[in-house]
Formats: sequence, C-alpha cells, structure tokens
Amino acid sequence: MTTDTTTTTISAPTTAITHIGQLVTNDPSLGEGPLGLIQDAAVVIDGDRIAWVGESSKAPATDNAVDAGGRAGIPGFVDSHSHLVFAGDRTAEFNARMSGRPYSAGGIRTTVAATRAATDEALHTNVARYLAEGLRQGTTTQETKSGYGLTVEDEARALRIAAAHTDEVTFLGAHIVSPDYADDPAGYVDLVTGPMLDACAPHARWIDVFCEKGAFDGDQARAVLTAGQAKGLIPRVHANQLGPGPGVQLAVELGAASADHCTHLSYADIDALAQSETVATLLPGAEFSTRAKWPDARPLLDAGATVALSTDCNPGSSFTSSMPFCIALAVRDMGMTPDEAVWSATAGGARALRRTDVGRIAPGARADLALLDAPSHVHLAYRPGVPLVSAVWHKGVLV
Amino acid sequence: MTTDTTTTTISAPTTAITHIGQLVTNDPSLGEGPLGLIQDAAVVIDGDRIAWVGESSKAPATDNAVDAGGRAGIPGFVDSHSHLVFAGDRTAEFNARMSGRPYSAGGIRTTVAATRAATDEALHTNVARYLAEGLRQGTTTQETKSGYGLTVEDEARALRIAAAHTDEVTFLGAHIVSPDYADDPAGYVDLVTGPMLDACAPHARWIDVFCEKGAFDGDQARAVLTAGQAKGLIPRVHANQLGPGPGVQLAVELGAASADHCTHLSYADIDALAQSETVATLLPGAEFSTRAKWPDARPLLDAGATVALSTDCNPGSSFTSSMPFCIALAVRDMGMTPDEAVWSATAGGARALRRTDVGRIAPGARADLALLDAPSHVHLAYRPGVPLVSAVWHKGVLV
Ligand SMILES: [Zn+2]
Ligand SMILES: [Zn+2]
Repeated sequence: MTTDTTTTTISAPTTAITHIGQLVTNDPSLGEGPLGLIQDAAVVIDGDRIAWVGESSKAPATDNAVDAGGRAGIPGFVDSHSHLVFAGDRTAEFNARMSGRPYSAGGIRTTVAATRAATDEALHTNVARYLAEGLRQGTTTQETKSGYGLTVEDEARALRIAAAHTDEVTFLGAHIVSPDYADDPAGYVDLVTGPMLDACAPHARWIDVFCEKGAFDGDQARAVLTAGQAKGLIPRVHANQLGPGPGVQLAVELGAASADHCTHLSYADIDALAQSETVATLLPGAEFSTRAKWPDARPLLDAGATVALSTDCNPGSSFTSSMPFCIALAVRDMGMTPDEAVWSATAGGARALRRTDVGRIAPGARADLALLDAPSHVHLAYRPGVPLVSAVWHKGVLV
Repeated sequence: MTTDTTTTTISAPTTAITHIGQLVTNDPSLGEGPLGLIQDAAVVIDGDRIAWVGESSKAPATDNAVDAGGRAGIPGFVDSHSHLVFAGDRTAEFNARMSGRPYSAGGIRTTVAATRAATDEALHTNVARYLAEGLRQGTTTQETKSGYGLTVEDEARALRIAAAHTDEVTFLGAHIVSPDYADDPAGYVDLVTGPMLDACAPHARWIDVFCEKGAFDGDQARAVLTAGQAKGLIPRVHANQLGPGPGVQLAVELGAASADHCTHLSYADIDALAQSETVATLLPGAEFSTRAKWPDARPLLDAGATVALSTDCNPGSSFTSSMPFCIALAVRDMGMTPDEAVWSATAGGARALRRTDVGRIAPGARADLALLDAPSHVHLAYRPGVPLVSAVWHKGVLV
C-alpha cells in the first residue's frame, strides 16, 4: 500500500478495458436504473482497484488497454454461502436418490468422517480447487464455512485452512449435533459455545448455526450466536430451509448479516426481513439438487427486503459452484427478473457479507469484474447452462 | 483415406488416453451395464477413429499418450436437434417475459426477418460460433435446421450454410406458415412441398415439420413429410410440444427417425413409440426457458421406447447449447436416472440421427470423446451448471 493522500493520483501501470457493450456497475449514480447500466463502457484498473468507470469514448489514457469487443461486463460474483472445507464426495448417495434406489446414506456424517480423516494438504487442495472453479465462472468473492469437523480440533483446522484461501470465513460448529454427542445435544452446544468457539473465533469473521428441526432449535441457536457475538463474530443463520421455524426472526433480532435459505417464510418473517438490515440469501442450488420447493423471492422483493443469491456449494445438497446457474434458476422458478437476479448475485452477496468494496464497479471498488460472451447480463438467464464468463479480473489481475 | 484392407493395421501417429477414472463406452460388450463402464480405462485413437478401448494397464504401445489423471470419460454428446441458422437475438422479448412485463413480441417472425436480412457471412459466423460453443461443452455431433427463411431462396441458403458446417442438416421449411402466406396456408404447403423442396433437398439429409395447433395439422404435416421422402429425405417431426396432437403417431407411421419434444403424450403415443424404431427426443431447454410442463421420460423408458436428449438451441424458446444442462434437468425434473440421461445425450442422440459411428466409444467409432473434471459421468447431474467438460477430442483431434 502506498501512502498517497490524493485520490486522483494514478500509479502505473493502469489498464483500460474498453468497448464493454453493456456494463452493470450496480451504482445508480454511474448509469441507468438500479443496475447503473452504461452502454459501450470502459473500466480503468489501477493496481487492485477500479480507478475510473464511464463511456468508452471518454476513457482516460492508460498504460495498457483490452478491447472487450462489445461483450457485456458485470461485477465479479459475490458468493456469500458455501461449504468448501470437506473431503470425499457423495456421488453414490446422489445417484441413488435421483435413480429412486434405496441407499443407506450416512448423509452429512459421511462427509464429516471423510473430512476428519483427510490430511491438511488434501483439504487445502480441495478448497483451492473449488475456489479456482468458481473464479473461472466469475466468482471473485467467496465465503466459506467449517462444519464438517465438529470437534474442537477439526473445526479450528477447517477455519485455519479456509482462512488461508479467503477472507470470508464462517464458524459453523453448529452444523449438526456431532455424532459423538448424539445422546447429549446440550453438551454439544456447551462445547460449541465454549472450548470450540475459543479455538475457532480467532480464525473466523462470522458465526453461523443450522436452526432447523433435527438440528438446533431457537434457544440453542440463540446460545450459539450470542456466544459468538461475545467473541466478536457477526451472526449469519441457516434459517427456514426445510420448514417454518424461528431462524429468520432470530437472525433479525440479533442483527445477523444474513438469513440463508428462507424457503419456508411466514408473512411475519417477510416483514421482519423487510424492516431489517438482515439480507435474505436464497440458495436455489439446494432446492434444485434435493427436488425441494423453491424459495419465492417475489414477496421478499416486493416488501423491500434485500435478497442475495448464493450457491451453497457443498457435496451433499448443492454441489454447484455456478452463480450463473443460480441466476437462471432464480429467474425461472423464484420470481426474480434477470436484472434482480444479477444484482442479487453481485451487490446482494456483498450486502450479505457487509462489504462495500465488492459487488459493484465504481471508482475505489476492488477491481473484480467479468466479461460475458454475450451482449448483455440478461443472457445469464437467457442462455442457461452455457459457460458465458469469458474473462475475469480478480483484484486487478486477469485470471 | 488409405486403402488398407486389414482392420488391425494401425497407421501412425496413434494416441493413447490413459487413466480415465471411469469411461462410458455405451457398448455393453466392452464394460459393465448398459453404459459399458470401464474403470481406469484407456482409449487409443488412430487418425479420426478409435482403434482400441480397454483397461489402462492393457493399452497397446502408441506414438503419443495423454494421462487423464483419473478424470471420467464419455462419448462426445450427440445433439440431434437445434436451430442455429439465424440472425438477431430475442433478449428483450425473453427479458420482458421473465420480468412479467408486456412486450409486443414478434416471436419467431422477429428471427425470420433478421435472418432474411442477414448476409451469408453473418449466418456462417453465427453457425460456426454456436457449433464452437457446443464443441467446447463436449458436443461433437450437431444436427441443425433451416426454418427462419421460409422462402425458396432463404431456406435453400440456410441449408447450404448449415451444410458447410455439419453433416446433419434438416429442411424445416414447415416451421411456421410463412407470414407471406398468412391468408393461404395451403398455398404455403404447396410451396414447401414443391419448389422449396426441389431447391432444398440436395442440401439436406432430413425433412422436419412443426406439427402443432397453430402451425401444421396432421394432413399438412403428412404432405410435407411424404413429399420429402419422395425426394430421398428422412422424416423427423416436431411433435406434441404444446399440446396433444397427431405428430407422434404420424412420425411412427412414416418411420421417422425421431419425434421431438413429446411433452404431451397419450398412452397410445407412448405405446406407438415403444413399438417402433422412432426415437423420442426430449428437449428440456425449451420447457426450462418457457416455464412449461416437463416431458416425462419415465413412462417412455419403462415402455421400452428409445429416448434422446437434445438442446433445441434457438434464440426464441431454448437458447442453451449445453448438453450437460439438459442432463441435469432431465434428472431433476423428467424422471431420468443420471445413467439414462447420459446415455440419451450420447447414444440416444446417435439413434435419433441413425448414426452408428458416434455416441459410443468402441473400436471403429469416430474418435469423439470428452474428459470431465470429475471422477464420474454422474457428476454431470450432481454438479449442475458447472462447466465440467475439460478436454474434447473431435474426429481424433484435441480441440
Ligand atoms: Zn449451507
Ligand atoms: Zn425445434
């Protein structure tokens, strides 16, 4: 970092990306509508930051230039919910479920056992692999969680490994009650809020809990989240995925950054989200891969809630790393317009992570953006399944 | 072409792809089950053909070798239904439909006007672009159709252009009644079965008709298909997409290679397909992008019909070129197992095109195969939206 005190100083080398057919800035002051659209746009990158955004014809002189040739540009995706610290996969379980064959699935316990048994190196390799896979698809900010260790040592290890790869790390010791505490869930909550939290808090920014029937009830979830807050972690909550429950209301009450899933909401839940700063993060990959009821974004958006889209990438219920795929599903099945879905996958994710430096393309923001092999961002929904992301800059570097 | 008369002669240079973690051959005599699965497999390519398939440890010596590193291998996808000879796109129409906004859409007429107005060069560029896009995603055989010209000259031009890029070309003058004949549909059928067919037949292998309420009825469709047969073209039919109708029965009666869409079938339709050689080609991209009812593969498969999967790639109702996306949809929403969906997207497509040289990996077949960034073909459904195809050989050449 330099100590320049002026904001207009541009330190070499700068790069201009010109002739972006249509650019989503997510900054209404820079362009048209809520997406701040600019036609035939240019973006100037200085180091890891965006220095200038505007019409191509008005771009300042730079050291380097890249001609986008009319391709559309968007902010890099902000994927605010994933579970990437795991080992093994669950192909046989998925195959049996989708083939209607019986299968004595261990479910999440299978992944817990494989993750505990894995070497640090194997886990590092896996996290790096899925981050790189996401990056190729335009994801330039990736949150990820622990939750497949469920012992003090294994949870702390998962967070150390995650933190080596990304800044957005969430402690999810309260993913399920550890099989080791099957007969003593209260004892497990004591572990999570005591020694496990002590070991994990230094490596995480966020604390999360799976508040759902069969996992943690409202009181247990409150105990986990408030203990985390006392250690300086900010809450986010797995809420109302499989059925109605207290998760969303608890998230709002505790000022959580995000309530995630939100598939089964009451009017009161929608209202609470709309009146709060808590983001409703929808994870369509989970409903896709478990053939579950879709969350409905429309009443949330109409009530004024902030909605984010995320992959929930994990080997059990949503093994996709594709934000474009989530956008296509949200538009087809969740009542979102293409514009809303693209906003939610970028700016919405940034809100869910309380970040102002990502999810938008504006002077001072981190230089994270993607070009699409298409003339507009609408094509992310219009051309489902097609890998349209054709160039990605992450922290100013073309990857 | 050499004039070797022995089948065992291997002409240099040969390439072995070794350590394919799990290989789908679609040849039950080569491996396990209907997919002919081989673990830790190798494939030897000689020119544009496959010379040898078996276990990696038994692979013969070759000039070159590529280590697949445990990645899964599949036959290249055979996409037996697309509409790639078009100009313009319909982004605004799609965006309005998905946003619930009124839009005075010209529908297919918009594309007809843009296609007629386009230069040959623009159409060549477009076809090449979408073929390349498909190839990157593993599609090594691509059928495509005319149908956006609807004049003698424009239909013949579309087929000449298509034939410059692919062997599988279909004359679809009977896509809709041309707007020029809005008041005289019988006159348009006369044109299609007369001068248009004369001009088009030399450039096509197949004849197709959109047999549906609002397009062509059973008698008109029969007239089109039998006229085509008299000129040496083989029928395929757009049948039973938007509602029940005579399309499937007509396809079976005339010995069509394929009845495409099959969304609204009676028991008699299913039975007719099951008793015939006519393939039922399902096009989930169309139902996805128009929010329509899914076709149900299960009763077709259970009755013994042959099912193919295809993209229907076109700018109006299904602008995807992704066969993996179609597989994921077929597994989630159309009652297919991952194994069945992968078979249908490869061997099934080959059946729909009456091809024995593609859709399988066996000695003598065309050397068309893809490696996945995954340990098995099941991941095409297990990891929806993720661009897993990481290497493609087409006619023996790594693309
Ligand atoms: Zn989750
Ligand atoms: Zn079609």
